[in-house]
Formats: sequence, C-alpha cells, structure tokens
Amino acid sequence: MTKLLLILCDGMGDRLTKGKTPLEAADSPNMDRIAKEGICGIMDTVRTGVRPGSDTAHLSLFGYDPLKVYTGRGPFEAAGVGLKLQDGDVAFRCNFATLKDGRVVDRRAGRAEHGLAELADGISRIRVEGAEILFKKCAGHRAVLVLRGEGLSSCITDTDPESSDVIPNSCESLDGEGASLKTAGILNEFTQKTAKLLSDHPINMERVERGLLPANIVLCRGAGIKPNIKGFEQRYGLKAACISATTLIKGVCRTLGMDVIEVEGVTGHVDSNIAAKARAAIEALKEYDFVFLHIKGTDEASHDGKFDLKKGMIERIDREVISPIRDNVKDTTIVLTADHSTPIGIRQHSADPVPIAILGDVRVDQVDRFTERDCAKGGLLRICGNDLMGVILDISNTAKLFGA
Amino acid sequence: MTKLLLILCDGMGDRLTKGKTPLEAADSPNMDRIAKEGICGIMDTVRTGVRPGSDTAHLSLFGYDPLKVYTGRGPFEAAGVGLKLQDGDVAFRCNFATLKDGRVVDRRAGRAEHGLAELADGISRIRVEGAEILFKKCAGHRAVLVLRGEGLSSCITDTDPESSDVIPNSCESLDGEGASLKTAGILNEFTQKTAKLLSDHPINMERVERGLLPANIVLCRGAGIKPNIKGFEQRYGLKAACISATTLIKGVCRTLGMDVIEVEGVTGHVDSNIAAKARAAIEALKEYDFVFLHIKGTDEASHDGKFDLKKGMIERIDREVISPIRDNVKDTTIVLTADHSTPIGIRQHSADPVPIAILGDVRVDQVDRFTERDCAKGGLLRICGNDLMGVILDISNTAKLFGA
Repeated sequence: MTKLLLILCDGMGDRLTKGKTPLEAADSPNMDRIAKEGICGIMDTVRTGVRPGSDTAHLSLFGYDPLKVYTGRGPFEAAGVGLKLQDGDVAFRCNFATLKDGRVVDRRAGRAEHGLAELADGISRIRVEGAEILFKKCAGHRAVLVLRGEGLSSCITDTDPESSDVIPNSCESLDGEGASLKTAGILNEFTQKTAKLLSDHPINMERVERGLLPANIVLCRGAGIKPNIKGFEQRYGLKAACISATTLIKGVCRTLGMDVIEVEGVTGHVDSNIAAKARAAIEALKEYDFVFLHIKGTDEASHDGKFDLKKGMIERIDREVISPIRDNVKDTTIVLTADHSTPIGIRQHSADPVPIAILGDVRVDQVDRFTERDCAKGGLLRICGNDLMGVILDISNTAKLFGA
Repeated sequence: MTKLLLILCDGMGDRLTKGKTPLEAADSPNMDRIAKEGICGIMDTVRTGVRPGSDTAHLSLFGYDPLKVYTGRGPFEAAGVGLKLQDGDVAFRCNFATLKDGRVVDRRAGRAEHGLAELADGISRIRVEGAEILFKKCAGHRAVLVLRGEGLSSCITDTDPESSDVIPNSCESLDGEGASLKTAGILNEFTQKTAKLLSDHPINMERVERGLLPANIVLCRGAGIKPNIKGFEQRYGLKAACISATTLIKGVCRTLGMDVIEVEGVTGHVDSNIAAKARAAIEALKEYDFVFLHIKGTDEASHDGKFDLKKGMIERIDREVISPIRDNVKDTTIVLTADHSTPIGIRQHSADPVPIAILGDVRVDQVDRFTERDCAKGGLLRICGNDLMGVILDISNTAKLFGA
C-alpha cells in the first residue's frame, strides 16, 4: 500500500493553436518524466462529451458522480468560505454588482473591494419571512448567501443575468412546486431589501466619492441544496488533505470532509506561490494518506486566452512543483492530470479529454511526453474521471475486492 | 460556434475479406483527407458488443439512448411514411406476403407491387373491436399498420415468422397484462379479416393471371408504442434537417422533429443519385444548424454480400459526396461515420465498431486513411455513439456547461 498524491492543473488541457497545444509547446521535462516512467491516457472527467464545470469535474474525479449528487455550485462556495451547511439549507454564489437606472452596468461593481465587508455585515442582518439569512463576503466582489429554513428548494432560477446592460432577473420556480415557489419569493424579497439597504448606504456614497462604482445590488446564482454526500475518509478509509487557493475547490474538498491546508502566498492566479504549495504537499504526505494539490493558474491563463502565459505557467509548474515532488516524494502513487480542458481559442471549458499520467506500480507504456496527443497513445487508453479513484486505489493496493 | 454536418454511410463498417475491409480496398482520397485533417476513432454506436438496428443506431447517434426510449420499429416506419402518431398508438411494420395451404411461401409476395395500393385501401377500411385501424402502403411490398385506441400495448409478438414454409405466427402477449392481451387479440382479428378480404380479392386474381404471387396475407412485426421523445431542436437548440431515401431513417428523424428534405432521384440503393444528396446537404447548411446526410447503398451492397459493389459504392460516395462537400462546406464541423458494420461475409449487421472522423476545431491526430483499422489508432480512441452529440456540440462550441 502506498500513499496517493493527485496533482491537478486546472484547465490545463487544450486544443491546437498554430498546430500545438500549450503542453506541446512547453518545455516540461519533469512532467515528461512522469509520463515516461508511468502509464498515460486521456480522461473524460465527467463523461465523454460533457463540458465539466470545476465543481462537477472535481466531484467526479473524487469518485462522486455529479450526475447523481450535484445540486448546484452554491453549497461548495459556502463550504469554501467556511460556512457549515445544515440539511435543507440552500446556498448561492453572489456578486456585489452595480445597478444604474434599473440596469446592471457592472456585474462585479468594478471589482473594487472597498467597504464590501461592511456592506456584507449589514446584509447579513436583513430579515425575511420564512428563512434565516446567512451572508458572507468572499474574495473580491464575491459573497455567499445561505437561506436556512423549513421546506426550501434549489429548483429556482438565478437573479444574476450574467450579462450587462440588462435588468436583474426575478427569481422563478423551475418546477412550480411549493418549496421552490417559496424559495423564489424569499430570494426576491432578499434582493429587494438588499437593494434598498445598499442604495443610500454611506459606504456607497464613499465609493462614488472615490471614483468607484457603487455596490448597490447583490446578484445570486448557482442555487444548490446541501448535497447528500458520504465523506471521503468514511468512503475510502483514507485521511485526506486538500491544497488549493480556490474557494470553490476548497469547498468541494471540505464538503467531502478533507482537511484544507492553507499555504502562505497562494493566489489562485499565475503569480501564485506554487513552490510553497509543492512543499506543503510533500509535508502533508507525511501525515495524510491522500493529498490533493490543485493549481489554478493554467485555467486563469486559458480564460484570458493567453497562450504564452499558459505555456509559461506549465513550465513554472514543471520546475517549481513537479521537480521537487519527483525528488522528494517516495512510496506514493502520483497522478498528474487536469479537471477539464480550457482551450485558449475559445476561452471556456470544453469537453475535450484531459491528459493523465500515473506513476506507481503500473504497466509502464511508451509515452514519453506529457501532452494531450501523446497521452492518447498511452496504456490507459481513454478512461472516465469518475473511475479514477478506483484505478489509483487499485494501483496503490488499497482497493476493496468486489466479489470473492 | 460552427454548423454541424453528419455524413452517415449505412453499414459501411466491415470485417476482413481476403485480408481487407471494403474501406481498405477502396480508393477514397477524399475520405482519407478528412481522416488526415481531423481526429479519428472507432465508435460503438449503441454499446460495445450490441448489434444495432438502423433505428436504434440512429437514435443513439442523435443522443437518444435506445435502451431507454426505443419501443419498436413500427412508430418510426409510421413516421417515415408521414403517419402522425398519437400518444398510445401502436404501430407495426408490415409485409404483403403469399400464403399457400396455410404456409408462408414468400414473405414479400414476390416483391411485386401490382395492385397493392388498392389492397391497402381495402385493408384500411377493415373494422375491429377496440381499436381504429390505420393502414398505409409504403415502398415495394411494405406497409405500416397503426392501431389507435385506449389501453393498447406493444408488448406483443410478431405475426411475421421471418422465414418461409412455416405458418404465420399468432400474436401473443409478452407480459400477460390486460393491455397486451387486448392488443394481441386485435392484431389476430385484423390478420384474419385481412386474409379473408385478400383471399378472393379481384386484384389477387389479376396478379395470378399475370404470373405474380398473390398478396393474400399481411405479416406484422416491430410493434412499438409511440415513444416519449423530446424534440431535437428543443433539446439542443439546433434547427435540424435530414436527407435520406430510407423510410425508417426519415421516420426516426421526423419523430425527433427534424425537417426531411426530399431529393430527386434518390433510391436508397447503390444506384441512388447521391451527388444530388450532397448538393442538397450543402444547400441545407445555409438554412439549418445541423444537417444529417444518410446514404444507404453501402448497407444494401453488404446485405447482398457483394464486396466489389460495396467498395465501388464507397468510391462513388468519395467522389460524388465527400469531394464536393470538402470543397464547398466552410465553418462547419463535419463528421464522417456509419451507423453500424454490415460485414460482407455475414450479410447482416454486426457489433463491430464503426470508423469515425471529425473535421473541425480538434486535436488532429496521425491517422491518414479513413478505414476501420486506421481510425482505431486515432485520437478519439473508442467512443460510444450515444456520446457523439456531446462530443460534436463541444467541438462546434455549442455545448452547455454542466456545473460551474
């Protein structure tokens, strides 16, 4: 039995730009060494032809089928900021935004954080009929809302229109049932009361004086009821830790009961202190059976459509993460992969399978480069992300026998 | 976002005859160019190891899992000849056949069409207890029967014995339930009344005088209740058109709500005017988001066990369909594949996976010939036909995100 280290570079898979993917263009000898000494393949993280979100992809890779357990993004955002959900809670991801003449002029209130903590504090004291309000500010212009009460449902639409120069959406029931009608009513009341509180709030006067956009509305999306999920350790018997700078990913891991290890200097962007994350992962493997190391910069560069930045981020991961891990981690099954592709050309998640390499007690194949097209020739062939845990538990000789 | 063109050569996949498949023996440079410039793979259209019918394969490829929605062939045949089914209708595919001394001597009444329209007209006026009769002649010796009424079921056996020199089957309930017992009774009554009407019908006297076999019985098979299927456009948001000469395939497409474009000179056989179909597809792409081009000749040649005819048909498709499409279709994700293999050696559908090549924003692989064995080395590896829509919607950048 060996320990397990899952290294996941968010959105690292890609399509061709001038005939090459960023992985193909990158100089990444340490990743290549993992490919060369391990077994490779390509992986559909949720299902073949399904464009995964970050949350659904991670659930699937941890062995939880998102088609069965996923209720929405909200509960993971809530867990990510440390809100403990109770059964029946409905959680939302929220943005502070700017409304002018009834229309959304900036979905992110200019990304200006000034005074938002104080506004959040006021919002968390709003009272509505039928549910308790929990509201917590997160990084930047983001926040999480939790509605707590009897008979709520997440089968409702977003108030966030996800575009500008339009009016905010009214929240509607998606199924016409009593619980969702009630919840939609509560969210609409919350939105109106919030707008009223914010419209003439001194903080917003101050923001305008400073040349910032006022944060005069809260837009909500990704409603989800607390998912019914068995803990990771309970399920696999492995003590697990997560190292990530991303609220949503920390939330997924916390929901599964993993310990989240905070690392100094991480940002979730291309400037993150990923060398510190690698050191934290190496250290964590002394205590934990399963360590999940998540690096977000590759996805950030992809969403910005920056090929060279993504290539450079891959090269930095190769030097600052893969190299020290290769040198310092022993007796561990190591997996290198991504949660989804985010092709530079389209700047959004795609269903293109991701490359995967596994180092351990495996049938070493002839692949010697860690790229999408090289890994497609590997010994794993094409696997489903939801089967990954089974595959690596087996390689680390900790899997249970089915049958006799 | 690009448009989508799915080119499907029916039954094109094969096994080895003297060491080669028809695709391997054929000179098909335009198909090879799609393979070379695209991404290739092999595909199990329904599931690995499942021998697909034409109807189940097409449903699966359009993203409808036949294991969940397929009720039988009848409803698609009915839709193919333009019969609009209502909820609860049970439809059958029928043959005019020849009975002698109580035994089926020819399941197709010698394939002679003479007078069958008039016979069908008479049959459509037959009355039975418990259901309305709709009966429509199709091409050749074929027809469609629809039973319309309360409490019917398609869980019954065929009356068509599917072999000669045997007596026709009595229709039986498969589940012993009231609805199927009732429906079986109705079909048996229909069969008896039809045989009575036809036995001394003047048209049959006339046929015998002309040296043709009498069409003195109607054999039914493929009972199916109207399937509960969400329309293609409603599901994918794509305006879709079908170009096919085959009743069954047109029926599948009509059932999904696609427009069926009729083309002059098409036959569904090896002599079909496939160049006209290619022109129609190119034209249709101006108006439609998704165009499905179906060519039947390859399957016909396979069922006849004619290797050279199949090879020749492939070469004709290459010249008359693929070449003009390659030259004239832009900004479109193009898929070239088959619905199933129909190996020459066995003259029937097999579960051997089909080759597939996709041209578009893909990870171009090193395959440079469009054959079963070359495509097996491609970057798609082996996919399930039921995932194809997800894969190509993703490539054309029209797929929805699952999660956040």
